[in-house]
Amino acid sequence: MEIKDIIRKKRDGEVLKEEEITFLMDQYMKDNMKDYQMAAFLMAAFLKGLNEEETYALTKVMLSSGQRLDLTEMEFPKIGKHSTGGVGDKVSIVLGPLVAAAGPVVPMIAGRGLGHTGGTIDKLESIPGFNTGLSITEFRNILWEVGVAITAQTDSIAPLDKRLYSLRDATSTVESPGLIVSSIMSKKLSEGLNGLVLDIKTGGGAFLKTAAEAEALAETMVKIGNAFGVKTIAVLTDMDEPLGKAVGNSLEIRECINMLKGRAEPDLEEVVLYLGGWMLYIAEEMLEESEEMGTFLLKTASIDEGILQQKIAKLRGLIDSGEAFKKFVEMIEAQGGQQEVVINPGLLPVASNILPIEAKGDGYIQRVDAEKIGTASMLLGAGRQSMQDSIDHAAGIILNRKSGSEVKKGDIVAVLHYNNDRYIEKAKELVLEAFEIGETPPEKRKMIKRVIL
Amino acid sequence: MEIKDIIRKKRDGEVLKEEEITFLMDQYMKDNMKDYQMAAFLMAAFLKGLNEEETYALTKVMLSSGQRLDLTEMEFPKIGKHSTGGVGDKVSIVLGPLVAAAGPVVPMIAGRGLGHTGGTIDKLESIPGFNTGLSITEFRNILWEVGVAITAQTDSIAPLDKRLYSLRDATSTVESPGLIVSSIMSKKLSEGLNGLVLDIKTGGGAFLKTAAEAEALAETMVKIGNAFGVKTIAVLTDMDEPLGKAVGNSLEIRECINMLKGRAEPDLEEVVLYLGGWMLYIAEEMLEESEEMGTFLLKTASIDEGILQQKIAKLRGLIDSGEAFKKFVEMIEAQGGQQEVVINPGLLPVASNILPIEAKGDGYIQRVDAEKIGTASMLLGAGRQSMQDSIDHAAGIILNRKSGSEVKKGDIVAVLHYNNDRYIEKAKELVLEAFEIGETPPEKRKMIKRVIL
Repeated sequence: MEIKDIIRKKRDGEVLKEEEITFLMDQYMKDNMKDYQMAAFLMAAFLKGLNEEETYALTKVMLSSGQRLDLTEMEFPKIGKHSTGGVGDKVSIVLGPLVAAAGPVVPMIAGRGLGHTGGTIDKLESIPGFNTGLSITEFRNILWEVGVAITAQTDSIAPLDKRLYSLRDATSTVESPGLIVSSIMSKKLSEGLNGLVLDIKTGGGAFLKTAAEAEALAETMVKIGNAFGVKTIAVLTDMDEPLGKAVGNSLEIRECINMLKGRAEPDLEEVVLYLGGWMLYIAEEMLEESEEMGTFLLKTASIDEGILQQKIAKLRGLIDSGEAFKKFVEMIEAQGGQQEVVINPGLLPVASNILPIEAKGDGYIQRVDAEKIGTASMLLGAGRQSMQDSIDHAAGIILNRKSGSEVKKGDIVAVLHYNNDRYIEKAKELVLEAFEIGETPPEKRKMIKRVIL
Repeated sequence: MEIKDIIRKKRDGEVLKEEEITFLMDQYMKDNMKDYQMAAFLMAAFLKGLNEEETYALTKVMLSSGQRLDLTEMEFPKIGKHSTGGVGDKVSIVLGPLVAAAGPVVPMIAGRGLGHTGGTIDKLESIPGFNTGLSITEFRNILWEVGVAITAQTDSIAPLDKRLYSLRDATSTVESPGLIVSSIMSKKLSEGLNGLVLDIKTGGGAFLKTAAEAEALAETMVKIGNAFGVKTIAVLTDMDEPLGKAVGNSLEIRECINMLKGRAEPDLEEVVLYLGGWMLYIAEEMLEESEEMGTFLLKTASIDEGILQQKIAKLRGLIDSGEAFKKFVEMIEAQGGQQEVVINPGLLPVASNILPIEAKGDGYIQRVDAEKIGTASMLLGAGRQSMQDSIDHAAGIILNRKSGSEVKKGDIVAVLHYNNDRYIEKAKELVLEAFEIGETPPEKRKMIKRVIL
């Protein structure tokens, strides 16, 4: 096998065999294949596509390039969750402790924000002392003690993905379905999971704008996950408008605390409970313990909407009883965070300036454009334009009103929180534009678009 | 402007502006753009194509990356020639001295062979002492004294092309029309030409197999050449069968000597005289001297087949009178070669073994497959599989018979010349396969397919 011949095959639109992909990646890890050759391959793969078999092969070699978490000694099913990212997407931070309170173990390796979308790791780092750089051993120990832990990708998890991702970032080859799926799945599959629920965002604030793109990606991810023996389900959820009221790191942590205390925004609550319901469904209905301690086998289970609703009701009960909140506090403590923040959110970073934004006319809010809000929040300091930028944990936007709300000119619809006023005018303008006001009430936003099993 | 954005534009099939291409190449020359980014760009350009304006822009920046020969002090028009390469293609070696004998100055920067095709520089290097590594100053001095010189590309000529070519070679992005045209034309335009005749080979032994591909390439090259103020004409010639009788470096030099002494194979003679006719046509009918010494302006001249035939007759006369041969000897002497080889070709490298190949049946030779002959010659040592390989100047093949010839089983149709017998069986098999024998005489081969003005 020759590196150049395999590049040529993909360039000419041919389907590569598993051993060709394995050979290529192996040569790359050994530095026999150069970065420029990999860049040419990535561009060819971007333009000619990777089919399911190729994506599977790439995921496999990326997964095996690094360490995998071995959680078989734990008696509960291990259920993961991944989101393709959005604006105000703080779902993982609530969902992890909530599902862990119900029994399953929830190992979460999460990412940082880029562009108009935020990242779970950045949000958690606004809690003073919270350690997102756990070693594999620390991660496992906390999962053992608490049942949930959220940490950043370490160098030992899928190092090939790390190398490829930075090359893709520098060569404009990021947005390729096959490359995205293998990158996400190789990280997720290293978490030692039995089940996985994917939150595929769709709409203006999502990375994939159209439902068709999102569905295609979701279908491939579900197939790849199942092929690796992890029961995988994808839920397409709305990201045309930010999720919840808060956008920005410490502001979102406050919103998470509120939700775990039972005071949730309806859209955020709907998504959290629905995804959590599926996580429990997998753990409690689709898996059975094998004779071998701690391993789980897939059961053939028909999907029953009634059972899903029971799981959702169970999760709601864990919020009402304070069990979920307790688990969240345990997780913060175990990861070294200052747990007093949950009683006194004033201990979280607070911005020194606020700027209220007024409605520019009378009517009903049709939509709050998620991408514009996300970009405005980034400009206030809450996000990054490139991976090297630092962020301001206190900055962000609170949305007082969302779609469906009736407003009069001059009503305060949002409040900007900021320390640095460098881009304040641009951010204000974007937020004003983001609020689309019309004469009649809009159709009710549908948060759950589709489930792919 | 951002490097990543320009890569993305090409990836998405957009047409780049001249300043975007210039920016990219400039950043690359300054090492601000990395090899891996250029590789991704080259693959995107390969798959999405470069239009004429983009190819012009790329040619321009490649040309200006290096030195250009300034030959304005010479009183004759400077006419260049380029071939896309083939098997037994020794045209330049005869054509250079022949056209120079008629008056024009013929500066030739030529290449080496790769795969089944040979290279002018390799062929000339079989002449003991012949220096193909002339400096710009030496090259100009010999043009001044003799009127013709043939040298290899130096580091100072289009260095950007050199860098891009090795990157393309390593990343399977060689065979792209826009990249090929800009690579060839940037080198040719650095020769300080007033006119240029392109020999675009087509058929089984050519780099471009189909007439349509060859025509498209030729049309772009003609437009680019003319856009740079160099009167450019392309001739599509047949490369389905090797040109002449000899394939292999010193064997081809002997054939060149024979032709310059008036003993030419008809196909070789036809191509040489036709291309030479156009070179003289450009020099003598399409250019007029401007007031400024040594510079030439384009004349609008209608094409007259009769005038072309006069030019061809003039060249034939220069062979008959021995003027062309004399110019060849002068060139060899000026470039340090042992000019005795023209009187005693036994001084050229001679192989220690020969193997005659017999016709496998009775009938008429329909075709001698150029690609198979070229590959066989390479296996005998006359060519390279990769740019790093060394070659054996004595090795090669003499074709005793060509298409149209009647043969009986056992007649010797070819003779292999070799020193190393490592691949002799494979070479023999290829040569046997190359001779396609049928019952009826084939149609006469048409050497000149089309002229693109």
